[in-house]
Amino acid sequence: MSLLKTPKGTRDFSPKQMAIREGVFKVITECFKRHGAETIDTPVFELRETLKGKYGSEGSKLIYDLEDQGGELLSLRYDLTVPFARYIAMNKISSMKRYHIAKVYRRDNPAMTRGRYREFYQCDFDIAGPADPMITDAECIKIVHEILSDLKLGNFVIKVNHRRLLDGLFEFCGVPEDKFKTICAAVDKLDKAFWKDVRQEMIAKGLDEKTVDKIGEYVQLPRSNDLVEKLLNDKDLMQCQAAKEGLEGMKLLLKYCDIFGAIDKVRFDLSLARGLDYYTGVIYEAVLEGAELTKSSDPSQEQIGVGSVAGGGRYDELVGMFSAKDTKVPCVGVSIGIERLFSIMEARAEQQNEAIRTVETEVLVASAQENMLEERLKLCNYLWENGIKAEFSYKRDPKPLDQFQHAEKSSIPLVAIIGDKELKEESVTLRNTKTRKEVSVPRADLVKTVKDMIKSPES
Amino acid sequence: MSLLKTPKGTRDFSPKQMAIREGVFKVITECFKRHGAETIDTPVFELRETLKGKYGSEGSKLIYDLEDQGGELLSLRYDLTVPFARYIAMNKISSMKRYHIAKVYRRDNPAMTRGRYREFYQCDFDIAGPADPMITDAECIKIVHEILSDLKLGNFVIKVNHRRLLDGLFEFCGVPEDKFKTICAAVDKLDKAFWKDVRQEMIAKGLDEKTVDKIGEYVQLPRSNDLVEKLLNDKDLMQCQAAKEGLEGMKLLLKYCDIFGAIDKVRFDLSLARGLDYYTGVIYEAVLEGAELTKSSDPSQEQIGVGSVAGGGRYDELVGMFSAKDTKVPCVGVSIGIERLFSIMEARAEQQNEAIRTVETEVLVASAQENMLEERLKLCNYLWENGIKAEFSYKRDPKPLDQFQHAEKSSIPLVAIIGDKELKEESVTLRNTKTRKEVSVPRADLVKTVKDMIKSPES
Repeated sequence: MSLLKTPKGTRDFSPKQMAIREGVFKVITECFKRHGAETIDTPVFELRETLKGKYGSEGSKLIYDLEDQGGELLSLRYDLTVPFARYIAMNKISSMKRYHIAKVYRRDNPAMTRGRYREFYQCDFDIAGPADPMITDAECIKIVHEILSDLKLGNFVIKVNHRRLLDGLFEFCGVPEDKFKTICAAVDKLDKAFWKDVRQEMIAKGLDEKTVDKIGEYVQLPRSNDLVEKLLNDKDLMQCQAAKEGLEGMKLLLKYCDIFGAIDKVRFDLSLARGLDYYTGVIYEAVLEGAELTKSSDPSQEQIGVGSVAGGGRYDELVGMFSAKDTKVPCVGVSIGIERLFSIMEARAEQQNEAIRTVETEVLVASAQENMLEERLKLCNYLWENGIKAEFSYKRDPKPLDQFQHAEKSSIPLVAIIGDKELKEESVTLRNTKTRKEVSVPRADLVKTVKDMIKSPES
Repeated sequence: MSLLKTPKGTRDFSPKQMAIREGVFKVITECFKRHGAETIDTPVFELRETLKGKYGSEGSKLIYDLEDQGGELLSLRYDLTVPFARYIAMNKISSMKRYHIAKVYRRDNPAMTRGRYREFYQCDFDIAGPADPMITDAECIKIVHEILSDLKLGNFVIKVNHRRLLDGLFEFCGVPEDKFKTICAAVDKLDKAFWKDVRQEMIAKGLDEKTVDKIGEYVQLPRSNDLVEKLLNDKDLMQCQAAKEGLEGMKLLLKYCDIFGAIDKVRFDLSLARGLDYYTGVIYEAVLEGAELTKSSDPSQEQIGVGSVAGGGRYDELVGMFSAKDTKVPCVGVSIGIERLFSIMEARAEQQNEAIRTVETEVLVASAQENMLEERLKLCNYLWENGIKAEFSYKRDPKPLDQFQHAEKSSIPLVAIIGDKELKEESVTLRNTKTRKEVSVPRADLVKTVKDMIKSPES
């Protein structure tokens, strides 16, 4: 039947997947809270105007619009950054450190096996408000470092660059100012495309070959943190104020990353550009190693990362775009994309054949006799009222074996058995599902005994 | 500026509201887990076809459609029940107990002060699969009882009725079968409208006065659990098989509610109908007392509840609507609407002037001297690496008073102060924000001391 599917690029989460997903969220939330962030939530859709002109032409094409059913024109949120800027401006907030974990929507070409969906989670951490240079930028990088380390997904690299440096470089190479953004978008493709193709794109966008090849020289320089010092000694380039500012910022950023113990994963990368229009300063992107794919045409050549799992940067102008008086609230932030992390963890759980419990039930209330339904309900209710997680068969007279098998299948550690004997004695027979040992417990001691047995299941 | 708003009927959640919201979710999730439920998630939009024909004509009008941007036709989910039924059918699941907490969307007339929004949370608990009569239905009612008791929002009533009984009653009163659903929808308005208006609607829908007045006699009977026995003795009504089945079911349900200790809040109410088309058996709705509003026209008259905070029922046919072979998976469930609960708790927090912390920061790293930024970063990093929630001023040389005031304002319990003296001694001065007492702690003991002081803040 055609009906039986989720929309293209989306998926359901099964209980097992939810258990893994909640584990990932826990690590991320703990990190955000460790850094003193509070949390907010915003609606899943915004006024279409709010999103308009914020993502560049390539991003805007991917926005989901709601049908005009009368009233306001609405669109689904494309990220959590623009809604955050709208929130800051609307509430006239001058400084805030917040995290926001929620789904965003992009009508992109889905590649679900590689973790690219049309509905996906973003876990955002942002700092709005005045700060001295590079301090908050470095904290965002530190956060990526902490989360990717805590999730134990293998080695990773956090590429960093600076939009001012890119602007300076473009100026220095002779790109006209009105082409900075489109050339920046072309550079951004370097992680997925060969230089020769990007070069062709730049020429098609109206640059002359000399300019393009000069850009090529720089963006193809070997990625390394030493490059910052080297470029600071490039006297020609240093004539350009923007490039100088960008490089000096980069130098300070690397120093703070070193203090934060994060420098081992940070790599200055002149070819990192980031797609979105709103960045104004430092930009960064984390890539998992071993999650690199080969560029399509020739597998023996150049390696490219499709494993981007976090990204962000500084956006000092975005809040001002929502403010009547052009009030500036400088911002910097990072977004963790969990779908890919989640795919890796799911595959790993499968590989290691991990038994993931999807329920937390502690006691199954059972009986081997008929006509015990009401007694089972009473006992289960008693356990619930004492804060014990309990369930029972929904059949009036279930078979004993079915009940025990259910306890084993669902890894319910204890079975509380009642029958005529137990009722007469005012006791309950407690069966340990794992060891199959049974003990008789007076009703009055039941709650305490269950709690003790849950705490130390081996005794 | 016109831009600075959220769409009609929606809102942002501030950090304080989030803290309250998370408290409500915790109570609800704990209850669902105590009853052995696992959780799933589904996309925020479904194929339009999936939702079509599931909510009746009044519901369908409120569905948000996405614009046709090429590809599938999509709509935002209207509830979590239909996506659950789609999930069950799609994955060929024969039995499942699941909860799902997520936002749903209705283009309704918003009444935000009364907690009615266009984007709102539902917290759903459903049991799919075979069960002997009324056992799982009673468990759903028990769950409402537990959650509303645990949230301590004052007195409440859980109204219960049975769709089969309503069908039987309509048949008995002479309503033609093809009008059952529309007459049911009219009865459903009785909690918001006067009988004389509902009566008029039924006549407009083509019933004769005699039939309508006979329905009126029944649906206006005083609400009480004794009414079940009374109606079972109504020999004329008992001629009708559907009414008899409904009443006998109701009797069994009330017995199980009694065993579950929930009967004190349960009230049989023949005028409860529930709007949605898909119910086939028991239906219920919880109303907070004191949350009753007066019907518009005459404030001195009849009281009506607008305080519905939970509702649900049995829907045995819905999964079958998605199954090629019309496989039946009987289901029963309940949905807790938290917006209203949340409004009440928010108002209460405001009234009691409760100080709600929105961050969990334990230590503010501070200095009274200049040129201590790098040392502050180092110390903060050391605390983070030891799992302590810490922050620091983003200014290079912040004023001491500003730092202490920030700690007080954000209720950060400890301030770790460093200066030349501390660096030389390899110590840190720990200041208790509340008592303003300061102690000097060797660096080597810092983590342990902080953890101890957080555990027992008064010592």
